Amino acid sequence: MYISHLFCLELQKPFQSVKRGSLHVMREMKAEKILLLLVCLNVVSFAVIAGSPPTCPADLGTECSDSGEWEGEFFPGIPKIKYEGPSSKNRLAFKWYNAKEEILGKKMKDWMRFSVAFWHTFRGTGGDPFGAPTKYWPWEDGTNSVAMAKRRMRANFEFINKLGVDWWCFHDRDIAPDGKTLEETNANLDEVVALAKELQGTKIRPLWGTAQLFSHPRYMHGAATSSEVGVYAYAAAQVKKAIEVTHYLGGENYVFWGGREGYQTLLNTDMGRELDHLASFLGAAVAYKKKIGFNGTLLIEPKPQEPTKHQYDWDAATTANFLRKYDLLGEFKLNIECNHATLSGHSCHHELETARINGLLGNIDANTGDPQIGWDTDQFLTDIAEATMVMLSVVRNGGLAPGGFNFDAKLRRESTDVEDLFIAHISGMDTLARGLRNVAKLIEDGSLAELVSKRY
Amino acid sequence: MYISHLFCLELQKPFQSVKRGSLHVMREMKAEKILLLLVCLNVVSFAVIAGSPPTCPADLGTECSDSGEWEGEFFPGIPKIKYEGPSSKNRLAFKWYNAKEEILGKKMKDWMRFSVAFWHTFRGTGGDPFGAPTKYWPWEDGTNSVAMAKRRMRANFEFINKLGVDWWCFHDRDIAPDGKTLEETNANLDEVVALAKELQGTKIRPLWGTAQLFSHPRYMHGAATSSEVGVYAYAAAQVKKAIEVTHYLGGENYVFWGGREGYQTLLNTDMGRELDHLASFLGAAVAYKKKIGFNGTLLIEPKPQEPTKHQYDWDAATTANFLRKYDLLGEFKLNIECNHATLSGHSCHHELETARINGLLGNIDANTGDPQIGWDTDQFLTDIAEATMVMLSVVRNGGLAPGGFNFDAKLRRESTDVEDLFIAHISGMDTLARGLRNVAKLIEDGSLAELVSKRY
Amino acid sequence: MYISHLFCLELQKPFQSVKRGSLHVMREMKAEKILLLLVCLNVVSFAVIAGSPPTCPADLGTECSDSGEWEGEFFPGIPKIKYEGPSSKNRLAFKWYNAKEEILGKKMKDWMRFSVAFWHTFRGTGGDPFGAPTKYWPWEDGTNSVAMAKRRMRANFEFINKLGVDWWCFHDRDIAPDGKTLEETNANLDEVVALAKELQGTKIRPLWGTAQLFSHPRYMHGAATSSEVGVYAYAAAQVKKAIEVTHYLGGENYVFWGGREGYQTLLNTDMGRELDHLASFLGAAVAYKKKIGFNGTLLIEPKPQEPTKHQYDWDAATTANFLRKYDLLGEFKLNIECNHATLSGHSCHHELETARINGLLGNIDANTGDPQIGWDTDQFLTDIAEATMVMLSVVRNGGLAPGGFNFDAKLRRESTDVEDLFIAHISGMDTLARGLRNVAKLIEDGSLAELVSKRY
Amino acid sequence: MYISHLFCLELQKPFQSVKRGSLHVMREMKAEKILLLLVCLNVVSFAVIAGSPPTCPADLGTECSDSGEWEGEFFPGIPKIKYEGPSSKNRLAFKWYNAKEEILGKKMKDWMRFSVAFWHTFRGTGGDPFGAPTKYWPWEDGTNSVAMAKRRMRANFEFINKLGVDWWCFHDRDIAPDGKTLEETNANLDEVVALAKELQGTKIRPLWGTAQLFSHPRYMHGAATSSEVGVYAYAAAQVKKAIEVTHYLGGENYVFWGGREGYQTLLNTDMGRELDHLASFLGAAVAYKKKIGFNGTLLIEPKPQEPTKHQYDWDAATTANFLRKYDLLGEFKLNIECNHATLSGHSCHHELETARINGLLGNIDANTGDPQIGWDTDQFLTDIAEATMVMLSVVRNGGLAPGGFNFDAKLRRESTDVEDLFIAHISGMDTLARGLRNVAKLIEDGSLAELVSKRY
Repeated sequence: MYISHLFCLELQKPFQSVKRGSLHVMREMKAEKILLLLVCLNVVSFAVIAGSPPTCPADLGTECSDSGEWEGEFFPGIPKIKYEGPSSKNRLAFKWYNAKEEILGKKMKDWMRFSVAFWHTFRGTGGDPFGAPTKYWPWEDGTNSVAMAKRRMRANFEFINKLGVDWWCFHDRDIAPDGKTLEETNANLDEVVALAKELQGTKIRPLWGTAQLFSHPRYMHGAATSSEVGVYAYAAAQVKKAIEVTHYLGGENYVFWGGREGYQTLLNTDMGRELDHLASFLGAAVAYKKKIGFNGTLLIEPKPQEPTKHQYDWDAATTANFLRKYDLLGEFKLNIECNHATLSGHSCHHELETARINGLLGNIDANTGDPQIGWDTDQFLTDIAEATMVMLSVVRNGGLAPGGFNFDAKLRRESTDVEDLFIAHISGMDTLARGLRNVAKLIEDGSLAELVSKRY
Repeated sequence: MYISHLFCLELQKPFQSVKRGSLHVMREMKAEKILLLLVCLNVVSFAVIAGSPPTCPADLGTECSDSGEWEGEFFPGIPKIKYEGPSSKNRLAFKWYNAKEEILGKKMKDWMRFSVAFWHTFRGTGGDPFGAPTKYWPWEDGTNSVAMAKRRMRANFEFINKLGVDWWCFHDRDIAPDGKTLEETNANLDEVVALAKELQGTKIRPLWGTAQLFSHPRYMHGAATSSEVGVYAYAAAQVKKAIEVTHYLGGENYVFWGGREGYQTLLNTDMGRELDHLASFLGAAVAYKKKIGFNGTLLIEPKPQEPTKHQYDWDAATTANFLRKYDLLGEFKLNIECNHATLSGHSCHHELETARINGLLGNIDANTGDPQIGWDTDQFLTDIAEATMVMLSVVRNGGLAPGGFNFDAKLRRESTDVEDLFIAHISGMDTLARGLRNVAKLIEDGSLAELVSKRY
Repeated sequence: MYISHLFCLELQKPFQSVKRGSLHVMREMKAEKILLLLVCLNVVSFAVIAGSPPTCPADLGTECSDSGEWEGEFFPGIPKIKYEGPSSKNRLAFKWYNAKEEILGKKMKDWMRFSVAFWHTFRGTGGDPFGAPTKYWPWEDGTNSVAMAKRRMRANFEFINKLGVDWWCFHDRDIAPDGKTLEETNANLDEVVALAKELQGTKIRPLWGTAQLFSHPRYMHGAATSSEVGVYAYAAAQVKKAIEVTHYLGGENYVFWGGREGYQTLLNTDMGRELDHLASFLGAAVAYKKKIGFNGTLLIEPKPQEPTKHQYDWDAATTANFLRKYDLLGEFKLNIECNHATLSGHSCHHELETARINGLLGNIDANTGDPQIGWDTDQFLTDIAEATMVMLSVVRNGGLAPGGFNFDAKLRRESTDVEDLFIAHISGMDTLARGLRNVAKLIEDGSLAELVSKRY
Repeated sequence: MYISHLFCLELQKPFQSVKRGSLHVMREMKAEKILLLLVCLNVVSFAVIAGSPPTCPADLGTECSDSGEWEGEFFPGIPKIKYEGPSSKNRLAFKWYNAKEEILGKKMKDWMRFSVAFWHTFRGTGGDPFGAPTKYWPWEDGTNSVAMAKRRMRANFEFINKLGVDWWCFHDRDIAPDGKTLEETNANLDEVVALAKELQGTKIRPLWGTAQLFSHPRYMHGAATSSEVGVYAYAAAQVKKAIEVTHYLGGENYVFWGGREGYQTLLNTDMGRELDHLASFLGAAVAYKKKIGFNGTLLIEPKPQEPTKHQYDWDAATTANFLRKYDLLGEFKLNIECNHATLSGHSCHHELETARINGLLGNIDANTGDPQIGWDTDQFLTDIAEATMVMLSVVRNGGLAPGGFNFDAKLRRESTDVEDLFIAHISGMDTLARGLRNVAKLIEDGSLAELVSKRY
């Protein structure tokens, strides 16, 4: 019974016999019927609203599942996702993404190089500044233990295998819990990473890894740009380990997102000096990468406005200027995120082209946001027109390898059904696939001949 | 030693002998010296950055303090805040707010009717979408128990008394923890409220109370506009209790902020029907208020864009239209929040005047935001020009009573010193006081004679 | 030769032998080839860039054409536009709009009721705040004479007939020049209107007329809300005449857009008093309409932010509140413009639904803007997803009659070919037609059954 | 009689006996009384509303004045503006700007180096996208003749002398009319420039000159980035001449603002190639400057979003990246405009600091805009807090010389009195002067010691 599951509280009894309002019925119909048609209407991420219940209440803190080994599948009703073509009505099938189909001389999968973002998919809670978490995946036991981290990692690889992609992305702190000391923290990470290595098998690799340098209070004034030398050192230690781990797992890139690197006022700091510190920090990372033989690409991910109003890596051009100023241009490329692009007043296509013409287009965080909303909403990209422009840049770039597309996108807070994780990724993959097909049509038609002639 | 306190972790040892960087020293100098001059520079809320350390780590979950009774003062070094005039260099004194001084025929305190917001001041953690809490007030024990709630309430009244204001505002769930059943929840609330009643004494009263109808997952689709009848009923039960409690405490107003009342897409709901539900809900509240003899004013607080893109109470005019449509105009006034005003594309003065000319100006949430930031930052208002415009509306309205000014404003995440709670409120109060003095000068000069002649 | 036509100046000689850059050739190819595919890509209005030259220089003020009677067609190469279906490659044909095809029980033309906006189509110059006019239609002689006004009116009706629509919209000052006195101005208007009446024939009618109350310096402080009684009176005289003329021409609606009704600061005026004046003004218009037996609907067109920051008819809800406050609710409906909707922070669909549930949806100004641009760009709507949402509101409203869709949209400044006027309108009409077809599919599928069941 | 002057039309008679509404009287009182107090309230540019009438109608095209020589003063009632100190009530006096007073070791005039912008002050018409010009200065004869240009130039120097500044800024096309050929255009320019040279005397110089490369239709696709080689060449010829003229007049800088250098879509062009063209263009300008011995600084003025959505010189960091990429870093500095800064999502202080730490802070266009308005409003800066931050950057930069502050700011459309030109400039100068005084206080207090210790 829906309501009892949803709330797990005293509401259960008085309403057990309440008939669902017709509005609610409509919502369920939506999930079934509207979806297929609306994929093209840019609203699918909103439309994906919970059909089935979360399994435990938000605020009681109960451990809903046993902490021990998980038996059987994490996604029991979900088959391996297949391509069925545009006429399919199966919401657990691809309509436009056909991995092995050749488009413009390359397999779709090789144009795309899709990756699942561990954080949104497996650590997203549905919490927001106004509300508690809403998602209670069946395999979660309510703890942040190493055992739970390992169980979650198994879910991750089942998801990846069923979705049929070959890459995943992670932050260090997403996949393993903080310990009481740096040693303990690193040991936790090693234990989980060893399992991930095993589960990756021969085919799956990290598209990239990264260090989480913004959530802990120590980073409140920044990591590489903190006014505290101890914080700078701690961040460096964390990055060192994260690069090692990414290398160990066969990762093809490593990302720097300057979470708290920015300022709210210049009355208490000196931007020039902070940027000097940031450049030293990145320079050290370059040296260490070379020392350990990690050949992956280092990527910087620009973002404006959030969390500080003045983020140092505001957009692609700002970051390119930074790289040039500190003579780091040959050592880094950019990871362009579409939602970050629109927050900076540009379009995603603009940011991709700015990166490309500066020789810096390395990877794409494939998401979107509402241009009328002033923060990063990390929605799955479902707008075909935008996807076409994105793919035009990818084609002009001759593809993204060793980078690819990472789905830095999350379910809406109201979307609480496990199946939604699949539906959302399928929509995102199909939308970009459709963009690629559009670009191919335009090129074959001759319309874009000059723009793309030199690249493929 | 600063760093050891800040991190409570293994960083402690290696850095115990590290000398603080000169940048850090400057930051401390700032807190001492820059503040007085910068009050007029609109940056004070940013400038208020931690001088002293939090007492426990963010992510270890340790209970830092004993759960038992708290001995002595909560704010031991802080005296009762007094008026010392513009030339004072004492940051724990008022420079412009002189409670009993008469301006335009009324005492400043009667124009202002300042109120402390319990939630920001005592439940604000410094957490944001990118980071964990940063504030660890000494009296917090890390639990959400009733005992902790009571201890926190004692801190609240010591704060109020030292600050020298007569009002406070609260949400039901701020002041007492949720229980396992509605009965238990209400019992928790009753226990804390009884203490609050006692601590209020003869002078202090709630400016208003309100029910928290947005954080719990049950409200993910709204409260009064939820598609679930059980949620609607639960919200009604919560409002009923919150009105009772406000009435019991002698509150002068009761506020409705439509936290999750809005939508992200109209493909799965009907805005007209949702608004019908909202009107019924509010109509029932009116009836219940009258039934129990609560004579306080009911207030609606407009807000756009957050958390849903399309909030139903977008701005003052939208809310006025709703009240007129559903024949609720005589039963409600508006609580205008300045940061909400700017998020809707208006100025605070515009919203205040819109409310006033519709006969709806009831209360002001005195805060501000950066107009280039797309979400509610709830900063203390320190811009004198804006404060002057705000006070012009207040004077034209003949004052706000039975409403007043509630400081719906919070410390920045980086501000972790207990003393900052006072400094921030003093800045906000002084700024509005300065605004009132400016209005008085303009009126006495004759400049605004026509605009204000009819009202005081 | 392109360059000589474009500049009509000394550039001609030195560059007569210059070969066009390949980039330019690509631009021309674009106009031919890219267009058909890109209609779905939301960029068509940008893509429509000049293929052929304007006929006279921008800044020399030469009269390019004879002022006498125009011989032959205004659009000689353009045939009557026909429906050819989605597979057509003819850019002068409809691919989705099939006027007589029945959809959801009604002919497409009756759902749509498309109208051509005289001002953008025949008075748009391509000028912007940074540049001089760019468009020099062959029939223009560089004057603002009555003779020119009549010739332009003939072009208008040839355009309307070739496009195959039945309605047009106009401002008084668009169609006839100001005179030295009000009498002379009205005489000019009468002369042009008499011709329009004749050219309308039996089928074409104004969807609406309106008075231009914002361009003349007398309106710098507003028209109905001006501080000058003489301006108020002059505006009233102008509206009186415009209603008469609309009535005479068989117009079905009359629109009020509050061009300069708003403020920049409230330090020198009283918003309440200005709104009282506006209400009196509109009340007088209602009385006059009834007196002369004009049965058309009076419409108010909300718009935020431009030209004054605080426009009084900010959005649908604000305007509804105004109508309710002054007891004008039964006398007016709203004309919702999509670009105005996004400027106010809403979506077009939100504004349409807000109007609809308040019983006020009367007409739609069918255009769009870039949500990242802060002013009204009046682009033709080419986004299919948005068109689908727009048409959903129209269907839920049971259609728009006696209102319809007016193309308040203009060519980009760089688009200087006469043919572009047709291509742009065809794109706009096809896009909305495609939206209607999508809504029909969703309804027939059962997905939106509940939302629309009551209306058609 | 006010109304007759304002409208110069038939309204005159019917309303000659109309008593001015009390609201209007208040407006006049405002101009007299409110102003002095409101300088600190950030609203002065709005408050400056016409007290006296324009002298000719907007749309009749009558030549209001004789084209011949102008006799007597252009600003007959206006004395030389003097410093009278903060207690002065004289609106034609400085309250905070005391040119020869020494602050932080330098005279105020040397910190400031204020310049009058010819275009806004002498060519601003009050026209906007919704309305005709509103300003009719008595010396204007309604023509764009060389005679008129020379008379206007005399007015300019009387203004500059009375205001007491030493610099002015101009576009080539502002000061002299276009001719039928480039030769004729240049001859016009030479004639006016010769007069300017004479009127400059020994003390006044151009702070900078620039070429107007955006208004003429030839520049619709850009100047240096146009797809037409002829346009590129024409722009080059224009810049060549403008540099020569600036050099001849003793100008200390030369500015490039990329008016139409940007794009609306990348479907019909290649951003990389356009930027290559822009770099070549600027490189040629550098070579020519050196060839003719012009030692002034070349400045690029960043601006986002307007007129094209994607302007190439978006902000300081974007422009710095461009200069680095094309090896132009040593040849250019930046002219930072405050209103452009806020349009790009930054603060003015951020842009100034970004320029400064890249070694590029060359000049400041001293204006401001409303951060809630999406286009460049070019208001005079009257916010003291912002002025303080601006001056902090100037002090940290050790001053701006050979650059300075140019008032790229204009009267509001409603401000039609000649005297307003003075009041507006005085407000802007006093505000920046007050900012400098604040910085000095902060430094002398020791608060900002570290930030500024190295620079003065």
